[in-house]
Amino acid sequence: MANSDVHLQHISQQFNVDLRELRNHVLVMGGLVEKQVADAVEALVRGDSELAEMVRQNDNDVDKLELTIDEECTRVIAKRQPTASDLRLVVAIAKMVNDLERIGDESEKIAKNALQLLEEGEAPRGYVEVRHIGSHVGKMVHDALDAFARFDLDLAFEVMKEDKSVDIEYKTAMRSLVTFMMEDPRSISRILSVMWVLRALERIGDHARNICEHVIFMVKGKDVRHASLEKTEKLIERS
Amino acid sequence: MANSDVHLQHISQQFNVDLRELRNHVLVMGGLVEKQVADAVEALVRGDSELAEMVRQNDNDVDKLELTIDEECTRVIAKRQPTASDLRLVVAIAKMVNDLERIGDESEKIAKNALQLLEEGEAPRGYVEVRHIGSHVGKMVHDALDAFARFDLDLAFEVMKEDKSVDIEYKTAMRSLVTFMMEDPRSISRILSVMWVLRALERIGDHARNICEHVIFMVKGKDVRHASLEKTEKLIERS
Repeated sequence: MANSDVHLQHISQQFNVDLRELRNHVLVMGGLVEKQVADAVEALVRGDSELAEMVRQNDNDVDKLELTIDEECTRVIAKRQPTASDLRLVVAIAKMVNDLERIGDESEKIAKNALQLLEEGEAPRGYVEVRHIGSHVGKMVHDALDAFARFDLDLAFEVMKEDKSVDIEYKTAMRSLVTFMMEDPRSISRILSVMWVLRALERIGDHARNICEHVIFMVKGKDVRHASLEKTEKLIERS
Repeated sequence: MANSDVHLQHISQQFNVDLRELRNHVLVMGGLVEKQVADAVEALVRGDSELAEMVRQNDNDVDKLELTIDEECTRVIAKRQPTASDLRLVVAIAKMVNDLERIGDESEKIAKNALQLLEEGEAPRGYVEVRHIGSHVGKMVHDALDAFARFDLDLAFEVMKEDKSVDIEYKTAMRSLVTFMMEDPRSISRILSVMWVLRALERIGDHARNICEHVIFMVKGKDVRHASLEKTEKLIERS
């Protein structure tokens, strides 16, 4: 082996170590964010103000993790100067982290609405839908992180498809809440709080989908962010 | 404050050329996005379905620009292997572009609601607020792009402060719309459309603020994304 090869090997081994660490930190952040989603939904449905407060406080940890992993990404790029697919990987991780932080933000919004509803009194409708859509998008976030951990393109694509059903569930729930508002105008303000929660959940589904798009980018090097599901499926099948 | 001189002096002449090009592309995308916000608001307030359709179509161009500039950022990093502040600059540009794309998304949502209202019939309230908050956040987006073009930290900080007043205007508008809904339940569905528009505008203000945070990061190397306004101000004063 020529000297330069040894050197290259060394660099890439170091890079692999960095990458493994980066990946682990993302999965730690992902685990926390996943818990935030579940806790926020639970706080709302059970009317648990302590849990809601905890979600709000924990959002600081999510924010800190975003900053730390972001810095780590920049440091790895500066130190190892990766090219081509290695660079792509680090860039995509930085983007994923941004989506995780936004899922954290949406969870915090849900917690705020839970506290609001505890003040105003329970909403007469919508909790069933919140629980249902909440567990649906919770599973999407979990699966998106799994898809990242295992670079599992099929699972990533499954999650992307799920986002469509969440959108339909969301629209159906919203329509029925509008009808209920019209029947009982005194409940408008409380029902609106539930609507904001549903909206936040729908956004969480979008971010889970985004994470899967980043996973596909990491593995295939193709940016599918604005592509149709059909195009994305063809890309994956070609592997 | 002119920090641009400091920041455009780089070891590699070639990197300078790349950077200037990157900056120009971001400003082109920014100009388009700024127009999307204004057009979307105009389409809604004037009930102009053609303009609303145009906004929806133009969102594809915004998306394409995001992908192009993103690729450009990765290519510049791979080719020039910038370190320290140069790398920071490129990374922050990539993040800015993400915020611009999301402003585009919110504009598209406003256009969709405009079309929805054209179908359902005009909402009895809220247009004054949409126009007012719309021009407020439109100016924020404009100023945020200016702050980026000139690396103007004072202007960046001004925009960040504006976001607070937008939040207050947004909350006031929402409260009065809730009251109106209760008085006239038949208007609930149409008023809701206006509420989604206000929400989208409030989000656009958040993204303008994010852009300014990225500008501060480019110049000062400090991530102020989750810092208070007071802390951010002290950081800027120290320059």
